[in-house]
Amino acid sequence: MDFQNLLNIIYKDCKSASTEGKVANYIPELAKINPNKFGMALITKDESLYSVGDSAEAFSIQSIVKVISLCIAKEYLGKDLWKRVSVEPSGTPFNSLTELERENGIPRNPFINAGALVVTDVLIDILEHPKQDFLKFVRRLTKDNSINYNAEVAKSEQKHGYRNTALINYMKALGNINNSPVEVLDLYYHMCAIEMNCEQLAKTFLVFANQGRLANSDEEVISAKSVKRINAIMQTCGFYDEAGEFAYKVGLPGKSGVGGGIVAVHPNAYSVAVWSPKLNQKGNSQLGISALESLTTLSGLSVF
Amino acid sequence: MDFQNLLNIIYKDCKSASTEGKVANYIPELAKINPNKFGMALITKDESLYSVGDSAEAFSIQSIVKVISLCIAKEYLGKDLWKRVSVEPSGTPFNSLTELERENGIPRNPFINAGALVVTDVLIDILEHPKQDFLKFVRRLTKDNSINYNAEVAKSEQKHGYRNTALINYMKALGNINNSPVEVLDLYYHMCAIEMNCEQLAKTFLVFANQGRLANSDEEVISAKSVKRINAIMQTCGFYDEAGEFAYKVGLPGKSGVGGGIVAVHPNAYSVAVWSPKLNQKGNSQLGISALESLTTLSGLSVF
Amino acid sequence: MDFQNLLNIIYKDCKSASTEGKVANYIPELAKINPNKFGMALITKDESLYSVGDSAEAFSIQSIVKVISLCIAKEYLGKDLWKRVSVEPSGTPFNSLTELERENGIPRNPFINAGALVVTDVLIDILEHPKQDFLKFVRRLTKDNSINYNAEVAKSEQKHGYRNTALINYMKALGNINNSPVEVLDLYYHMCAIEMNCEQLAKTFLVFANQGRLANSDEEVISAKSVKRINAIMQTCGFYDEAGEFAYKVGLPGKSGVGGGIVAVHPNAYSVAVWSPKLNQKGNSQLGISALESLTTLSGLSVF
Amino acid sequence: MDFQNLLNIIYKDCKSASTEGKVANYIPELAKINPNKFGMALITKDESLYSVGDSAEAFSIQSIVKVISLCIAKEYLGKDLWKRVSVEPSGTPFNSLTELERENGIPRNPFINAGALVVTDVLIDILEHPKQDFLKFVRRLTKDNSINYNAEVAKSEQKHGYRNTALINYMKALGNINNSPVEVLDLYYHMCAIEMNCEQLAKTFLVFANQGRLANSDEEVISAKSVKRINAIMQTCGFYDEAGEFAYKVGLPGKSGVGGGIVAVHPNAYSVAVWSPKLNQKGNSQLGISALESLTTLSGLSVF
Repeated sequence: MDFQNLLNIIYKDCKSASTEGKVANYIPELAKINPNKFGMALITKDESLYSVGDSAEAFSIQSIVKVISLCIAKEYLGKDLWKRVSVEPSGTPFNSLTELERENGIPRNPFINAGALVVTDVLIDILEHPKQDFLKFVRRLTKDNSINYNAEVAKSEQKHGYRNTALINYMKALGNINNSPVEVLDLYYHMCAIEMNCEQLAKTFLVFANQGRLANSDEEVISAKSVKRINAIMQTCGFYDEAGEFAYKVGLPGKSGVGGGIVAVHPNAYSVAVWSPKLNQKGNSQLGISALESLTTLSGLSVF
Repeated sequence: MDFQNLLNIIYKDCKSASTEGKVANYIPELAKINPNKFGMALITKDESLYSVGDSAEAFSIQSIVKVISLCIAKEYLGKDLWKRVSVEPSGTPFNSLTELERENGIPRNPFINAGALVVTDVLIDILEHPKQDFLKFVRRLTKDNSINYNAEVAKSEQKHGYRNTALINYMKALGNINNSPVEVLDLYYHMCAIEMNCEQLAKTFLVFANQGRLANSDEEVISAKSVKRINAIMQTCGFYDEAGEFAYKVGLPGKSGVGGGIVAVHPNAYSVAVWSPKLNQKGNSQLGISALESLTTLSGLSVF
Repeated sequence: MDFQNLLNIIYKDCKSASTEGKVANYIPELAKINPNKFGMALITKDESLYSVGDSAEAFSIQSIVKVISLCIAKEYLGKDLWKRVSVEPSGTPFNSLTELERENGIPRNPFINAGALVVTDVLIDILEHPKQDFLKFVRRLTKDNSINYNAEVAKSEQKHGYRNTALINYMKALGNINNSPVEVLDLYYHMCAIEMNCEQLAKTFLVFANQGRLANSDEEVISAKSVKRINAIMQTCGFYDEAGEFAYKVGLPGKSGVGGGIVAVHPNAYSVAVWSPKLNQKGNSQLGISALESLTTLSGLSVF
Repeated sequence: MDFQNLLNIIYKDCKSASTEGKVANYIPELAKINPNKFGMALITKDESLYSVGDSAEAFSIQSIVKVISLCIAKEYLGKDLWKRVSVEPSGTPFNSLTELERENGIPRNPFINAGALVVTDVLIDILEHPKQDFLKFVRRLTKDNSINYNAEVAKSEQKHGYRNTALINYMKALGNINNSPVEVLDLYYHMCAIEMNCEQLAKTFLVFANQGRLANSDEEVISAKSVKRINAIMQTCGFYDEAGEFAYKVGLPGKSGVGGGIVAVHPNAYSVAVWSPKLNQKGNSQLGISALESLTTLSGLSVF
């Protein structure tokens, strides 16, 4: 498959497409991004890298980080994790309180905000130095020690995070948070504020296309069984209230963030990251979804 | 892959497993099934058939039929179908009215009862002789003219179907049903009352593992694009409120029915049907899910 | 209190008021009413009658009838009635299915449609000839044998009643309806299709201002205790999702209907009926509420 | 009416009744109350005071205070208050987030926690020294300068108040809170921690039975119109999810608190306070409701 050619075609289409989406603007740091940025990078199991556009420019990965934090929590807690968070798709927006109330404080899945907060609470329990240890894990996956938190973004999220404060206090009231809400939120906002470019992001997620091993290495970072399961959760829950639509259009497990990034995985083949800041009404990158739809349609390859 | 050997191992495990599930008992015809029945059949793209246990004994396929009716409606209406039914997973049980009210009568997906009723309404609009034409389509997929409706089962469902009557009248009130509720329900209950054995069921669904073509034939029954999309919908919505759990454990697109049947598809490889009448609390065959989990774990093959 | 003078003032104000409300138009019989009709009648405990405008012109009392059917069911079943319908205000519109699902088929109160259907089901159980016996009871309260059902209206409601069909079948599925849905709906639609003018309506409800006795008589139709309780239910639940607003503005127990009628009761003093077909967004007569607010404000009399 | 005799009869009945209710135990200060305490006090418009049992022993008035804070906010803001909080009964428990989400952060009424928090936010906007000014207002109503906050109770509530923290942050996110959540909660917990005995409580609420004037005085503290309206809100919303039941059984406007107190008002006649710490499942004083039901039944007096 000539992936570079595919990426060139997609890039050309996307640059000429007119979009109505809007850049996330709830914090100044996200609002000031140039809305016309577009980058894409694909890396195969053998570490061949293909890229196009602004693929070397860093952006805030936001909710995409939830997949990585889930990995760590799952490896430590195993099945016990599912006592505190379910793996079912949510029928409501990512920050809904209604569903959480109906389910007595057990979030529907680890990728809605409530579920990611529970996973963060787990990280504080199991990591000795949560912020440093988490960053170390990300750098190990990416094989790149330059990856870091953007403290400004984290601080700004904290300042406007009334809704997340509501979610975590509600779960604390129902007994599903062990640590102090303030401490959990601090780690959560830092993790969301990690910055990567498309190439780094694709590299980070290659582990999910490689049965849990680092590329060109026998080092197993995550068990093959966990990889299968986390891919399944990405497939069913990775796009908030648009998970079905994404599975339907793209047919790959993936995860999006409000920074405009999307990462997707073709098990045993490749991982791919795309970045375009304009979001559709469901909060996912509009061109990002189109680009990935083109990729699986043009290549004829999807998990389905 | 020695599928026959795998099936033998799974059969042995399942026969000795103790289960707490219960046979569906809301109509007499389903309640009188021997709860200890267990059959399984797998058919590969080249039509090699492997089977074990009660794989030649017919049972009521029930909700599994919703995938077939969706195929027909999708082929005729194309994208317009999605104006009347969404493709997002549902966060609530398969016959919930709450969600339907929130979404103004547009069902979340075609596999919850409300969505299947809308699809049935479409069939009445597009098929000249709905009951005969539908059966003809199923027989074409299965290459078996003995497939038929069980009129007794259909009649019994009708008699106890107050909840479906509620669903369809509610959608009629909101303008999402064209035909008379009575007529739609009649076709719906007949379709659910189709009987097949595991071998026939696996054969029927082989089309979804074969990019829409009949096996060993160039005849395209469904477009490759539609197949990709219907597989995606099975993956995200095929198991009511247990879709995430099934994706997580089994990692294949599939569909279950309250008759105890489950069918799953490994795109470009095989389709597999399993039957065990005892249902878990979410209404899916308990041993059926275990058997499929063993299949993908032992074979090391899943879409993830 | 010079009630006639008050009514004259209110009439003048209402005739000159501009309203944005709309006549109920879901059935032709209601849609063809002259929207500018306005009538009002007040009758005191000693049967002094005051009236103004179109107070002698009959209209469809619709949901107002639910108070009368509740009386009969309550007298027969006593406390047992509350096992099948609650007496709590509803936080959602009058025909919501969501709440009914959350409460497992036990309607929140007897004045939302679901609750009124349960009460109607009770009437079929306890009355020998439901339609005749019910009419007889109404005529006894009104002391007027000309009161009757409008069969055309009942038939038309039946024809468009998909939502009520949904509600009753849902409750039947959950075991809270004893009789056939079709039979219950038939009685229900007939009861709603009773026609009265304001004077007759005020007379009918005088029993609730007179501790259950017919005016100028020792004949107790309803126990004083039941009257106290039914007035309380009218106060908290009589105006769908606008009950709090009505209590707040008017301060009297009352009940509205989509035909544009409202009846209210000042215990131990008077009953009052008003009719103006234009409805506000909550489905209650817009001028009717204004008129009653003026009545309690100008007279300085309310239960609060 | 010989109220002292009535109170004696009720006291005797209540002391011998066996109850299954439980004292509120979410904070240590409430949990340590003797569950068998029972006090009742009734004061008529002319300030005749009748009392029985532990009527001179102070307890935490908790949610009862919400009526007083509403008075102040209503007097200052007038109708504008209703843009930020509705006056409709809630169909869900007092601290539900679901309803708040459905209504976009506008609480259903000022007596559920969310609504009371909005009212508290208003007080911070309009009072120069919120804590002192509020206490001053309460002392003016009660004509008793010994009334005070219990700082220990306030502190303890704050410490366990995750759910209220959730509610207020959620409304802050939706733009319905002007001040800092921490500041609003601090005032809220102090107000709830006011202590009174039954006699003081009855005196405080006499203003609602006296058209807004202090007893034996021409001093209007609240407008007569506001009194009518606040009584109406107490009637429809004063008992969380048991408002209909209370209206049905007791037939008076009233308000309860988890400290076991209930106060009720018979407009133009009397106010009455009762205290018994054991709560029923809906969070209202079990014997308190019984006592008030006996009062209106034995006296034959209720607003209905």
